[in-house]
Amino acid sequence: MRLLDIYAKMKSDLEVIEERLARSVSSDHSLLTETSTHLLKAGGKRIRPVFVLLSGKFGQYDLATLERVAVPLELIHMASLVHDDVIDDAATRRGQLTVKAKWDNRIAMYTGDYIHGKALTIVTELPNPLIHQILAKAMVQMCIGEMEQIRDFFNTKQTIRDYLLRIRRKTALLLAISCQLGAVAAGADAATYNRLYRFGYNVGMAFQIGDDLLDLLGTEKQIGKPPGSDIRQGNITLPVLLALNDPNVKDALLSEIHHIHAEGGAGDTRAALKLIRKSEGIKIAENLVSRYIFKAIQALEGLPAITAKKNLTDIAHFVAKRNY
Amino acid sequence: MRLLDIYAKMKSDLEVIEERLARSVSSDHSLLTETSTHLLKAGGKRIRPVFVLLSGKFGQYDLATLERVAVPLELIHMASLVHDDVIDDAATRRGQLTVKAKWDNRIAMYTGDYIHGKALTIVTELPNPLIHQILAKAMVQMCIGEMEQIRDFFNTKQTIRDYLLRIRRKTALLLAISCQLGAVAAGADAATYNRLYRFGYNVGMAFQIGDDLLDLLGTEKQIGKPPGSDIRQGNITLPVLLALNDPNVKDALLSEIHHIHAEGGAGDTRAALKLIRKSEGIKIAENLVSRYIFKAIQALEGLPAITAKKNLTDIAHFVAKRNY
Repeated sequence: MRLLDIYAKMKSDLEVIEERLARSVSSDHSLLTETSTHLLKAGGKRIRPVFVLLSGKFGQYDLATLERVAVPLELIHMASLVHDDVIDDAATRRGQLTVKAKWDNRIAMYTGDYIHGKALTIVTELPNPLIHQILAKAMVQMCIGEMEQIRDFFNTKQTIRDYLLRIRRKTALLLAISCQLGAVAAGADAATYNRLYRFGYNVGMAFQIGDDLLDLLGTEKQIGKPPGSDIRQGNITLPVLLALNDPNVKDALLSEIHHIHAEGGAGDTRAALKLIRKSEGIKIAENLVSRYIFKAIQALEGLPAITAKKNLTDIAHFVAKRNY
Repeated sequence: MRLLDIYAKMKSDLEVIEERLARSVSSDHSLLTETSTHLLKAGGKRIRPVFVLLSGKFGQYDLATLERVAVPLELIHMASLVHDDVIDDAATRRGQLTVKAKWDNRIAMYTGDYIHGKALTIVTELPNPLIHQILAKAMVQMCIGEMEQIRDFFNTKQTIRDYLLRIRRKTALLLAISCQLGAVAAGADAATYNRLYRFGYNVGMAFQIGDDLLDLLGTEKQIGKPPGSDIRQGNITLPVLLALNDPNVKDALLSEIHHIHAEGGAGDTRAALKLIRKSEGIKIAENLVSRYIFKAIQALEGLPAITAKKNLTDIAHFVAKRNY
């Protein structure tokens, strides 16, 4: 099944989520409503809500309960984007001005805090403290991931393990708990929600590596911002680390990264991109994406053969096949 | 009873809180541990934990439960200070360098996020979702308060109602729920925790107005930063608004505030402080402090005459009598 067909089948439930998302950030403070809604309107794939709803099918599916997980998870993702844009000094996201660019850093900081707070307000409407605990722990890990990213900016000596741990915290964890909490909220048993957690985690790892590849291989139109943005801001991703292991590329690439760093974020990344693209790093990173997708699908084995299982499998395949 | 005596009586329980505070921000990420601990070591009166513990005396006092309320509330307060310092461009707090001054704004932002997350991790160990809900709602209101402060910087046309609403969100609410949640966690009934909420709220209002007076009337040694810091950064507090209602002062003060604003935070505030100090605003603000304290003590009426009630009353009197 194509991705669009999966979304079409879930349309009415996703509309409920979308409506609640919009309502959730309408505050009695007009600027906060404006900044938060600005972000919401930029759209997105709403992959976290989709994972929550599909995972909810493995238990007692109740939309009123599941939306109180799906909406907070999407809000936490949005809040992390707003704070991320402050760090990355990003002017656009999804083709729109970022909150920090349209307003300022201070407003972006509190918009993120506010969206976080709203997320918690909604999830705490559910009486199950396990859900609150899992979410709180994930939020802490996400912060650690962000700090690690700052620490490792332009650090060409970091290991692949450093990178994997960082994207685990930054990206994979929230997708993992989207699956897990959808199942927990639906009253599924631990064996079920643990499998779904592993599915989400592995898809998340594949997704982030794919995203990092896209930033190196895609066009500005595909990415929504200029290619090479990661390396320009010092975010050393997996294909770059792998390229630095490639003796044909290493010294030239190190020198390019050094130049980009010295020019303080305004540097020309074209030469670096060329080196990375011709290195062995691309192929190895692509293989790793496939391996994570394989592990994601494997994690679903043993779950009942319902439509949601098929849908999750299809989504995993879609993540694997993203065109660069 | 003097404040010190109250603290002395609570010493062993406060030590447990202090130890847990220190433990809570020790992460596997060394920079986050360092930034968070930096803040923790600056100390403070730990008034939120004190309110939690004393309010817990009106129910079944259990330290293991109460610390899971007290520690998160103090952490949320600390996180708000870190984010506040980013906004205020503050170099020192409690006589120490702020996180944003010692590191940078980005690190301060994620340190705040991280401390927030840790607070949630601890409070969600408690199985009572009502506690989680109250806390989440307060966090949203606190953000709105911060945004209102940004919106109202250098706005000399704001009303006294704007000011009161802002400090309610920024300060009073967290003290109110410190009292409320201490009692909720101890299993007290709604009549009891509502009274304690009102006590904390009114003390909080008095405290913030007192703090705003101190910034205008205190010495650098008393305040821990130069007097007039609020007006320098555009934070128009109650005594200033009242001074602007004083026809003997109004025009000269407006012109001074205009100058300070034009000089972008580096302005000389001495003339403005002189005008405010000789205005009627000081006396009226001091009277309002007394009225809030009176209302705080009134809110305790009807609660059993236990030592904790006496202690809370004494603390309220202490807040009223702070020396400028």
